[in-house]
Amino acid sequence: MSSTFDPLLTQEDLKRIAAYKAVEYVKSGMVIGLGTGSTAKHAVSRISELLKQGKLSNIIGIPTSTTTHEQAISLGIQLSDLDSHPIVDLSIDGADEVDPSLNLVKGRGGSLLREKMIEGASKKFVVIVDESKLVKHIGGSGLAVPVEVVPFCCDFTRGKLEEMFKEAGCTAKLRVGGDGGKTVAVTDNGNYVVDLYLEKDLGDLETASEKILRLPGVVEHGMFLGIATTLIVAGKSGVTVRDRFG
Amino acid sequence: MSSTFDPLLTQEDLKRIAAYKAVEYVKSGMVIGLGTGSTAKHAVSRISELLKQGKLSNIIGIPTSTTTHEQAISLGIQLSDLDSHPIVDLSIDGADEVDPSLNLVKGRGGSLLREKMIEGASKKFVVIVDESKLVKHIGGSGLAVPVEVVPFCCDFTRGKLEEMFKEAGCTAKLRVGGDGGKTVAVTDNGNYVVDLYLEKDLGDLETASEKILRLPGVVEHGMFLGIATTLIVAGKSGVTVRDRFG
Repeated sequence: MSSTFDPLLTQEDLKRIAAYKAVEYVKSGMVIGLGTGSTAKHAVSRISELLKQGKLSNIIGIPTSTTTHEQAISLGIQLSDLDSHPIVDLSIDGADEVDPSLNLVKGRGGSLLREKMIEGASKKFVVIVDESKLVKHIGGSGLAVPVEVVPFCCDFTRGKLEEMFKEAGCTAKLRVGGDGGKTVAVTDNGNYVVDLYLEKDLGDLETASEKILRLPGVVEHGMFLGIATTLIVAGKSGVTVRDRFG
Repeated sequence: MSSTFDPLLTQEDLKRIAAYKAVEYVKSGMVIGLGTGSTAKHAVSRISELLKQGKLSNIIGIPTSTTTHEQAISLGIQLSDLDSHPIVDLSIDGADEVDPSLNLVKGRGGSLLREKMIEGASKKFVVIVDESKLVKHIGGSGLAVPVEVVPFCCDFTRGKLEEMFKEAGCTAKLRVGGDGGKTVAVTDNGNYVVDLYLEKDLGDLETASEKILRLPGVVEHGMFLGIATTLIVAGKSGVTVRDRFG
């Protein structure tokens, strides 16, 4: 599915187009996982708009971060959590990278754990990106693969992660805060983030995932393998919808 | 190696005997992982005693919990952490269960994550138990296999763990505090603990481990597979030392 757009569209326009397309999947009565980040926030706004217009009703949102929680509350969307709603009908969220098999890197915004819990519990998970996020392989954008770690001896864990992927030319850095690096960045769960910068392909992603998770001190990583069910890409030449295995 | 003891020895005596035997492995100049719990505390006391007698010197202790940190400080043992000493010469700690392959269950005391980080970073890890801790298979004592989880939607995670091992007759319970269950128990890392009670064998432990770690919301579990290098068991009939693969 593809259509042609105005070539003057900005990246922000493309993010909004992808988000609006994803919200077409939302039906009245659904429990919806609400993503975090600059693309996902357009989807949250759009859901609120359709609720106010009476085109949607009886929606329960499950926010993936405190930021999205606040946005959704301010827009009047009814919220709940996984404890009360362990099955989510549909989640909509952005991604930092998407590979050709719909494997994702997420978490540059720091919400990877809650996103993975909620999106992993979803019957359908629609990923919305502009075309700049498409990569041939994970880590391929030159940006980081984030790993959420416990604060206890985080430099030890950082060193272990760097050593683990040294053959992929890995440099592991503890993420600092938005205050020019004076403080360490803290996730919604009170943890830290180690960003893995890779010179080469990680190889088999499932193997890499298991190795990371086996390291004590690691809470979760930002590779979302086999979780996305649909990808919506907005690019200068149009919007493309692709289902996994489709 | 075995010797015969007074049959009137209490369980506390047996714990102390195992701990003292383990401290024979400690040499001057070593970096030592200091365990947590009723057996490990005897080892910490013994190290302090030998330091005071001048039989040991230049020991750096890496405590596995805030409790052990406080005990070691009060006994005058010099302390450090994994960030400064990423390689530990020897760790000594108790266990809640030990199977015939020296796989352990740990964490009923709530310190499993720090213990696993430190003991996993140790060249040698000596486990000290009284004979009541020996089981045919993990979970075999009828007591829990603990899993450290993030507080966020912990009941969702608890439900997922119970479902994961339903064929082993698993009941998963959120651990409550020592105040009669009015509050949830919190680990040194600010997390919660879900205790898995099993009616049957978990099957292949490596497979079970991977499944647990893959669940978002899980930080770490209390199965220590292939980490222990030496087991010291004190029983009514004597003390036994067994090396892995030995």
